[in-house]
Amino acid sequence: MSERLVVIGGGGAGIAAATIAKRVAPDMKVTLFTEFEDIAYSPCGIPFVHGREIEKFENLFLSTVERYVEDGLDMRMETTVTDLDLDKRTVSFKGQTEGFDKLVIATGFVWEKPSVPGANLDGLHYVKNIRQAMEFDKLLDDMKKAVVIGATPLGVEMAGNLGHRGLEVHFVDEGPWALHEVLDPDVAQPVHESLEKRGVTLHFGTTLNEFLGDGNGRVRAVSTSAGEIECDVVIVCLHKLPNNDLAAAAGVKVGSTGGIMVNERMETSVPGVWAAGDVIEVPHGLTLIPIRGLTGSHAYAQGRTAGANAAGEHRAYDPVWVPWGLVGGDYTIGGFSLGETLATAVGVPYVVAKGVGVSRARYFPGATRTNVKLLAEPGTLKLIGAQIHGGEGVKERCDFLAFTAKRGATLHDIAWMENIYSPPIGALFEPMAIAAQNGLAELKKAGQL
Amino acid sequence: MSERLVVIGGGGAGIAAATIAKRVAPDMKVTLFTEFEDIAYSPCGIPFVHGREIEKFENLFLSTVERYVEDGLDMRMETTVTDLDLDKRTVSFKGQTEGFDKLVIATGFVWEKPSVPGANLDGLHYVKNIRQAMEFDKLLDDMKKAVVIGATPLGVEMAGNLGHRGLEVHFVDEGPWALHEVLDPDVAQPVHESLEKRGVTLHFGTTLNEFLGDGNGRVRAVSTSAGEIECDVVIVCLHKLPNNDLAAAAGVKVGSTGGIMVNERMETSVPGVWAAGDVIEVPHGLTLIPIRGLTGSHAYAQGRTAGANAAGEHRAYDPVWVPWGLVGGDYTIGGFSLGETLATAVGVPYVVAKGVGVSRARYFPGATRTNVKLLAEPGTLKLIGAQIHGGEGVKERCDFLAFTAKRGATLHDIAWMENIYSPPIGALFEPMAIAAQNGLAELKKAGQL
Repeated sequence: MSERLVVIGGGGAGIAAATIAKRVAPDMKVTLFTEFEDIAYSPCGIPFVHGREIEKFENLFLSTVERYVEDGLDMRMETTVTDLDLDKRTVSFKGQTEGFDKLVIATGFVWEKPSVPGANLDGLHYVKNIRQAMEFDKLLDDMKKAVVIGATPLGVEMAGNLGHRGLEVHFVDEGPWALHEVLDPDVAQPVHESLEKRGVTLHFGTTLNEFLGDGNGRVRAVSTSAGEIECDVVIVCLHKLPNNDLAAAAGVKVGSTGGIMVNERMETSVPGVWAAGDVIEVPHGLTLIPIRGLTGSHAYAQGRTAGANAAGEHRAYDPVWVPWGLVGGDYTIGGFSLGETLATAVGVPYVVAKGVGVSRARYFPGATRTNVKLLAEPGTLKLIGAQIHGGEGVKERCDFLAFTAKRGATLHDIAWMENIYSPPIGALFEPMAIAAQNGLAELKKAGQL
Repeated sequence: MSERLVVIGGGGAGIAAATIAKRVAPDMKVTLFTEFEDIAYSPCGIPFVHGREIEKFENLFLSTVERYVEDGLDMRMETTVTDLDLDKRTVSFKGQTEGFDKLVIATGFVWEKPSVPGANLDGLHYVKNIRQAMEFDKLLDDMKKAVVIGATPLGVEMAGNLGHRGLEVHFVDEGPWALHEVLDPDVAQPVHESLEKRGVTLHFGTTLNEFLGDGNGRVRAVSTSAGEIECDVVIVCLHKLPNNDLAAAAGVKVGSTGGIMVNERMETSVPGVWAAGDVIEVPHGLTLIPIRGLTGSHAYAQGRTAGANAAGEHRAYDPVWVPWGLVGGDYTIGGFSLGETLATAVGVPYVVAKGVGVSRARYFPGATRTNVKLLAEPGTLKLIGAQIHGGEGVKERCDFLAFTAKRGATLHDIAWMENIYSPPIGALFEPMAIAAQNGLAELKKAGQL
């Protein structure tokens, strides 16, 4: 009998694990369980369909169940795994039990629910499943006022997109600025301005007290430390929590973040059991502190690692340097690893190098300002983080910096990097190099170089 | 008496050298000679003003003579240095002679003239001086047919821009495709298509025979191996030759490319004499073969190195990995170091990794295809070159690849790089990673991994 691999979860990590395992070991029987009816769509696109920036939900589908079946995968759609026995090596679902030889857990995340009264009222919406989003989108046509709770990346995207759609949006967060856990205030500022231009009212530093019902079990307002805000709907965008119940109950070790602990091969504390995606924690490249809640591209790469290893290869997944980026309102921000806020919070010493450049020749139509802040280790001047805001090229520059920081690049390296100068696509001076040069000049002036 | 530095040349290299020297050594007397009336404008923007993509020539001016004078530079505008005596340490100009202690030669380039009959006729235009360009632009209003000679970067930009302006453009080059000395044919193809859409007729593989006059000393047609092409004007865009006459006559050593030889400090064969920009040659990072004719950003960085060292610092300029990029028609191409054509020509063995990705999530408006070809050293799989074509992010990716190749990055590193996935700015899979993964998969299939 051929070896049996079971993958639990149909998101990016699960799909990647199943696909790569089948490719590496075509004789393996690969079964994938998902509780949903759909597979291989882009949940990250949902806010932009609500905001009418993407025409329709159908565009978000990237593949079909049939396609995976053709590739030889045993796809169990709308099938929730309810029990996992790691001694007997079985999964249970719909009253049945099936055996496996190897297992990949990719059960993803669940949204944190607000811990205030009224959190179970109707009208509190969570963004996740595309079918629910399609239904919800129809309801939005008749809604006028929305409250978005939580200035997380999803919160910023939902607030901006609902504003773009013409709703009156109230954006509520306890923190002093958007994404305050990771973002520096100077980088948050242009996002705030852009959200306000889209009709979003910001309520930062504002505590959530209660969701108020209309007497029929539906939310009618949100009570906050800044007063009561009437609304037709509440979008809850708090933290993503690891969906670890099944794994933890089966005896798989869970770490300090709540994520499943894995080694560099994505193998859990139980031999023959791998895990990947939003349900795991991985070490940060600089601090080696376990972190979780990364992006879809991380989930996919972890899934590939887990799947390949489950199929007999020996791949390693490196600690992460976490390039990130998003569009808040109409404004692009990004970074990698630490900003000043996070570096200060975790006690990592740093020197700062700041500069402003342009994305094309200054005089070329479409040129936008690119604001770069680099953080470096005092003494060695090795890069340890960055935050960038501006128009074009933020994503590419943050990918670049994360890659080079991982390999020990210093402010000197960036200050003297070669760069393309061609008026329609690049300015004489690369913005990252400007920042590094400024930083070195200041260190020199201060006698620290 | 304070030390006297003379800089010959007012382009990017000269300006950078003079500025940085004054900053490093404020007591130094820094004198800059330029034959032109203007300083600190962007010659690279000229084709785009002709093409009406940039509104007016005035936009290309980045600074003023007065500004440099305020910074303490002694600016000698419209002053051609006619003689250089390195024993007496003097420069001669307008019948006068002045002494110097240190010298930076930044005399730039001159355009190669066609070596066929009729090359001295009126109506042959060379793109360089902004005042001439302003006059020429007025004449263009009454012209209908232009012949562009030479599918160099400038030739591609001029042909595309004159087409954009509505002229009938004939683009003539001996080579089989645009930029055939450096570009691979698959990357040239979309540029050809875009130029043709702009009304440019391509005459590649076509030899230039003669420029035909109208009897009044003005060009009326170009005779080629593919027949006679009538025209109102000819734009000559051949090679950039080092403007080395003054330096060579004074005894400064010139290398195999015709460029002035410099060490890593940009110092010439004559102590106390530095050189920078289009007049010098520098080693290629991979082959260590001397090359020249790089970009404005290279000229500027070399000028900074020369100027800082002339002022007493000890800076080194590294061998170059030459990221490059340009827009041909409406299509962006780029690369770094070697493509297949050049690698084959110089006998560098390579393996190829190819892939196609998208610049944003596939479904997001504005997403464009990004075609990546990576060249790696057989065995070590270290990057040795790349060519990219597509829409957004070509410049940033080529800068990235040049930087990481210089530091020994391999196909494995690129295949597993972290990347930002956020629908409006980046796709789930980074195009460079796709190419590297494909290349590794093919090597594995071929048993070479």
